[in-house]
Amino acid sequence: MSRSQFLPQIPYGTKDFLPRDARRKRAAENALASLFARWGYDEVVTPTFEYLETLTVGVSGDLVQSLFKFFDRNNAILALRPDMTTPIARVAATRFRESVPPLRLFYLTNVFRQEQAQAGRQCEFYQAGVELLGAGGPAADAEVVALAVTALLETGLTNFQVGLGQVQFLNGVMAESGLTAGEQQRVKQFLVSRDLVGLGEILAGSSLSAAAQKLIREIPLLHGNDKVVSEAYRLVGNDVSRAALDNLADIRRLLAGYGVERYVTFDLGLIRDLDYYTGMVFEGYTPGLGFPLCGGGRYDNMVAAFGVDCPATGFAMGIERILLALERQGIAPPEAVRDAYVAWDEGALAAAIAEAGRLRHEGRTVEMALEASSRAEAEAARAAKGYSRLVYCDNNVAAG
Amino acid sequence: MSRSQFLPQIPYGTKDFLPRDARRKRAAENALASLFARWGYDEVVTPTFEYLETLTVGVSGDLVQSLFKFFDRNNAILALRPDMTTPIARVAATRFRESVPPLRLFYLTNVFRQEQAQAGRQCEFYQAGVELLGAGGPAADAEVVALAVTALLETGLTNFQVGLGQVQFLNGVMAESGLTAGEQQRVKQFLVSRDLVGLGEILAGSSLSAAAQKLIREIPLLHGNDKVVSEAYRLVGNDVSRAALDNLADIRRLLAGYGVERYVTFDLGLIRDLDYYTGMVFEGYTPGLGFPLCGGGRYDNMVAAFGVDCPATGFAMGIERILLALERQGIAPPEAVRDAYVAWDEGALAAAIAEAGRLRHEGRTVEMALEASSRAEAEAARAAKGYSRLVYCDNNVAAG
Repeated sequence: MSRSQFLPQIPYGTKDFLPRDARRKRAAENALASLFARWGYDEVVTPTFEYLETLTVGVSGDLVQSLFKFFDRNNAILALRPDMTTPIARVAATRFRESVPPLRLFYLTNVFRQEQAQAGRQCEFYQAGVELLGAGGPAADAEVVALAVTALLETGLTNFQVGLGQVQFLNGVMAESGLTAGEQQRVKQFLVSRDLVGLGEILAGSSLSAAAQKLIREIPLLHGNDKVVSEAYRLVGNDVSRAALDNLADIRRLLAGYGVERYVTFDLGLIRDLDYYTGMVFEGYTPGLGFPLCGGGRYDNMVAAFGVDCPATGFAMGIERILLALERQGIAPPEAVRDAYVAWDEGALAAAIAEAGRLRHEGRTVEMALEASSRAEAEAARAAKGYSRLVYCDNNVAAG
Repeated sequence: MSRSQFLPQIPYGTKDFLPRDARRKRAAENALASLFARWGYDEVVTPTFEYLETLTVGVSGDLVQSLFKFFDRNNAILALRPDMTTPIARVAATRFRESVPPLRLFYLTNVFRQEQAQAGRQCEFYQAGVELLGAGGPAADAEVVALAVTALLETGLTNFQVGLGQVQFLNGVMAESGLTAGEQQRVKQFLVSRDLVGLGEILAGSSLSAAAQKLIREIPLLHGNDKVVSEAYRLVGNDVSRAALDNLADIRRLLAGYGVERYVTFDLGLIRDLDYYTGMVFEGYTPGLGFPLCGGGRYDNMVAAFGVDCPATGFAMGIERILLALERQGIAPPEAVRDAYVAWDEGALAAAIAEAGRLRHEGRTVEMALEASSRAEAEAARAAKGYSRLVYCDNNVAAG
């Protein structure tokens, strides 16, 4: 190929998946699609863009700021979907109104957020996720957490932990403490960013008693095994927080039945940065990656925003983040299968085509030479392309 | 679930793939991805949107008019990709500059065109396709046509035909005839739309000889088996048209080696509606569907527009169109596998979870009940959900 200097760029925060990465992505996605189906989840595919007013139902703040927006020909505002939770809630509310709950749905798709790009999080990125709609109890929450752990294992990861929290635990503590709504919001933000210094400052500037300040400062430390829950029971007296702890204990007991409890630790300071969660929340982490592999929780009010009152729980995992973790942990990606390179001498192309057809019919991966070559050239091409075997057709073979 | 009347709409020209359709789509895409890989093609995934100036390289007219455009934060114009040929040419020119040709790439993705929606063609739709870059001869063209036929067969279709033409045949005839550039453009448009009346009118109004008019009017009739090529040789004397016929005869001979020649007919009036084709072109049709299932051809100048001079040939197929054809021809979609519904009596949830885990470990598709039920209720739920087998755990089983 001849060359010149014109090199078009791709937009900020986007990437090309070249063959090696595309193969790893497809392998991970196929494994996940197959797993979700084995757990009784059905795939749905929704439009890449929706009306802005649909995508902002039940969502606020940063996610809305990050939307890519444009106009249709009637000047209605469209936006690229920033996640799949809202589209799935829409589908559940409009397309499955007559279905018997629970609904189990999964997706494997790209989502779009116009924000600072970082390793493992571009402005366009891929998510796999499930939503379990119409079931409110801990059995549904445990199933979703167990499926998230199983999904991470299915991709090949083994070294990860899932932190499990409950947003009502903090809500109960804050409602009891007498913090103003503004202070409560700031406390949440410091917990999301795990900024314990900032948390201490806002508490010190509040009118809270020393005991109440101490309790809230301890929340981020309530992180670990079953003892954390008994410790937390000791610290709080309000009904909302205690119900949240009961819920966590129930979920944890069921996770033992799924055989995944060793991957799960309690983390009562875990506050997901989306406002719509109403119960248990969780995030999966792996060493050396400074952001979660997956996250989810219970969001009982989202579908109601579309007019159908329906409890819901689910999670999403970041495909690029999983691929990055696999790469950093040296877990080998699937190799491209390359069985036979079929080359040919002048006049033997028809024989080569027939031979390639025979091998492909047997299920072999076969690449055909497109120009005549000598056997030595063909062998060099085979080696360069990484095929296991050379099939060389010359006129003797063609005649034979 | 309780109900209200708020029903959000999705944008014009978009659709939700509910589970049955999503399953058919995934099955078709998996079959195609696996086939393309067996022929030595590697997948690439490119950004959903690119800079407008990238997407309009080498493309003009209706496709540019149909772009969904928006701004990034620096006020550069972005657009959703209307096809994958330009992004693949960009990738080939920028990412594989040092690779040894030929490059074989495939994609399976959605593309976007803001135009009149129709059955099988929404404003967002899915395409599978391949591009074979860096090989100029008929061996490459034949491989691509044979792969398109094999791909249609792989989806389950059997009743289809591929029409094969060559844009240089018409170019040679028109250059020889003395039509003005504007008349040539209009002749092409009438051939694209198969408007023989319009074609006759423009020819009658031109200064062409009766013999030249007759020749051009006959082009749409040059449609059929090998006799069409000998007939066409008889009609034209110019070198460009005769070279085009030589090329078609070479391709057809190689297609016989692939065993797919019975699916291919010559169609010298076939003019694809994109300007970038430079050699053979083809489209696949099935009875009862008024638009092509797939289309492609040779486009030797597209990659050069990105600064790398590189011949190229390829095709794209419409996933929704294939699914529609399968449906209309009564070809059964893959059924969802539903092996076991695991339900439980009060107190036996842990036993049920363990049983579900055991079955899933064996590779079974298992759905868990999320609330306690009687055996009769469980049996009703199993039947309603379409699972083959009920596994009911009560406290006797749990204890046993």
